[in-house]
Amino acid sequence: MPSNDPEAPCAQPAGVGEVLDTVVPFYGPRQAGITTPAQRHSCLVSFDVTVESRRDLGVIMRTWTGVAAQLCAGEQVTVATPAGKRTTPDSGEAVDLGAARLTVNFGFGPRLFGVGGPDRFGLLDRWPMQLVEVPSLPGDDIAPGCLGADLTVHACADDPQVVVHAIRELTRSAGNAVRWRWSQSGFNEAAASNGTPRNLLGFKDGTVNPTSPSQLADFVWASGDQGQDWMIGGTYLVVRRIRIDLAAWDRTPVEDQERVIGRYKRSGAPLGSTEEHDTLDLDARDARGGLVIPLDAHVRLAASQENWGQMMLRRSYSYDNGVIEGGGVLDAGLLFMAYQQDPRIGCVPVIEKLARRDALNPFIKHTASAVVAIPPGAREPGEWVGESVLG
Amino acid sequence: MPSNDPEAPCAQPAGVGEVLDTVVPFYGPRQAGITTPAQRHSCLVSFDVTVESRRDLGVIMRTWTGVAAQLCAGEQVTVATPAGKRTTPDSGEAVDLGAARLTVNFGFGPRLFGVGGPDRFGLLDRWPMQLVEVPSLPGDDIAPGCLGADLTVHACADDPQVVVHAIRELTRSAGNAVRWRWSQSGFNEAAASNGTPRNLLGFKDGTVNPTSPSQLADFVWASGDQGQDWMIGGTYLVVRRIRIDLAAWDRTPVEDQERVIGRYKRSGAPLGSTEEHDTLDLDARDARGGLVIPLDAHVRLAASQENWGQMMLRRSYSYDNGVIEGGGVLDAGLLFMAYQQDPRIGCVPVIEKLARRDALNPFIKHTASAVVAIPPGAREPGEWVGESVLG
Repeated sequence: MPSNDPEAPCAQPAGVGEVLDTVVPFYGPRQAGITTPAQRHSCLVSFDVTVESRRDLGVIMRTWTGVAAQLCAGEQVTVATPAGKRTTPDSGEAVDLGAARLTVNFGFGPRLFGVGGPDRFGLLDRWPMQLVEVPSLPGDDIAPGCLGADLTVHACADDPQVVVHAIRELTRSAGNAVRWRWSQSGFNEAAASNGTPRNLLGFKDGTVNPTSPSQLADFVWASGDQGQDWMIGGTYLVVRRIRIDLAAWDRTPVEDQERVIGRYKRSGAPLGSTEEHDTLDLDARDARGGLVIPLDAHVRLAASQENWGQMMLRRSYSYDNGVIEGGGVLDAGLLFMAYQQDPRIGCVPVIEKLARRDALNPFIKHTASAVVAIPPGAREPGEWVGESVLG
Repeated sequence: MPSNDPEAPCAQPAGVGEVLDTVVPFYGPRQAGITTPAQRHSCLVSFDVTVESRRDLGVIMRTWTGVAAQLCAGEQVTVATPAGKRTTPDSGEAVDLGAARLTVNFGFGPRLFGVGGPDRFGLLDRWPMQLVEVPSLPGDDIAPGCLGADLTVHACADDPQVVVHAIRELTRSAGNAVRWRWSQSGFNEAAASNGTPRNLLGFKDGTVNPTSPSQLADFVWASGDQGQDWMIGGTYLVVRRIRIDLAAWDRTPVEDQERVIGRYKRSGAPLGSTEEHDTLDLDARDARGGLVIPLDAHVRLAASQENWGQMMLRRSYSYDNGVIEGGGVLDAGLLFMAYQQDPRIGCVPVIEKLARRDALNPFIKHTASAVVAIPPGAREPGEWVGESVLG
């Protein structure tokens, strides 16, 4: 076996630089970072809005659009703040890096429309009825402050420092007009670019996702019905931070884990099948007449065929927040993120059903939650995200 | 400008797979991950030891050595736990990934030797006098539980999931013999492989590091003097988690930031010089007779020539823990890690001086701290890390 003699040439990483110059276009009819193949790093931030007028809210979104366009092009940020000045230029920690496939998208929470609080911005008549909160559920253990959002910013890139830099520049460009409520950083394994990533359960996550234009049109992109045509080209995001009791999970034999999930751990195939993308056969029975995929298996409860044929576009990230204060327990798991046309028939009923019956429940807790409308994109420089409702 | 039309082919990452197959040898006279070029991701865990005999402590280290050797070779973990059995095989979330330049090293805190507490393991006569805690200092705001360690595990790799997987497998392989005290994950920008990485201040960090064999011998590797020859081939690690007030830093004009640090932000050159690696001229004066590098500049106070010619090997990682409970403030900054031959004359006096005089102090708080002895490596299969003192 080779020795790690410190005088010997060290193993050097190779090829890292290649990913860093790739640009994902920011401008377009839809915001990027939704159907974009998942990047390796992510940060979602929930902001409170502290300004009180629709005009000032528009200033935030116009500023953010300009900053995001520069960031996603891999440029240093130079645009002016809402106050019309900058005390310093770009914070500089990403100056040697490229765009690293950075995407930034923005979301609007229900309270922005006066739902569940005062109608601060006079937007109640623009509220899309699809934009509802996930109700409080058994298994919820929402951390203080980690519920909902006025605005969300979601940045994803293949370099973690590019992600932090984007969040930081966007935050300060808004000055005192916004305030952090909660945030969560996450990661995907590098192999995710070659297939379905594994989450910290060790299982592939996101196997059944809508991908074709017709599936995306039917299940992901907002329809603009009920008079809210400003959402055409947009979608709705449901975010849940799910802490996994990794120690308990790791004590569970793999065969039991597979019955909890309803898939084989190594291949990702449904129980009774051989390939990851084989169709779920929920009626299959074993030699003794029992269901191959148990009644409380996670995949059965979440399956499209058990949920009115609905599909959601999952784009989740693992997270590791380190040891919980007091020691002994790790706060790690999944930042579940799902995009859909209508959370009322897409994600929320599934989450409610899972909260009551999922065999996974003894291993998980939900510690943060938000639902936001993701408005359409800014099609070209001069347009801004949110203009269709705030402009 | 191109559009992000969702029907157009998406920008795909390229080259990511290349880094994942590289193996850094685990076995050797020194533990790996010290002079190894910094990987992109890192996690340091502080453990409490719950067993009470030196023999049981040795079992932990023998088990960890075997698990770490498998992990660093990119293999699935198969070794037995201290209890002689495993309930499940490898947790599986890194099954599709290679070694990703994983390194794992282990450290022993002062209390393991009965310093500052009972001598549980009868090791007081093996205590190396170099192994001291950093005293409590102005600017300290140590989070509950985030002080010291019985044992540390430090995993670094180019994939975050490989890091998490390593920490997880090592933790569970020790069963109930250890308990998490605190932990911190971190990252480096991808460009770090091509030069000195920038920290979240936006400045290059680690420009002056000992690299030659003679510098490493003089300043980094333990001498084994004072009867503690079991440390020959080892070193001492000082860890400090430093929260940076990024909002305040970002409001500070770049010229003022550069006077705080004593270097130019973009190039990393010392003030008054042009290249990053130019020698610090601490006596240089400007046209008006003032010192070019201010008296309280960070680089002046930390410079080798101001600290008895000492050098420490810095190998720090940035971190982002998200919004602090209560909102409004981000817990992000630097997990400072420095290796040296003797913390009493290497790092600790510098930290004490900086705590009193560093121009950076208004922007930072120290929220976690530990000093550990990093014993020599296991030279070949059958040996184990710590055998020289516990065996």
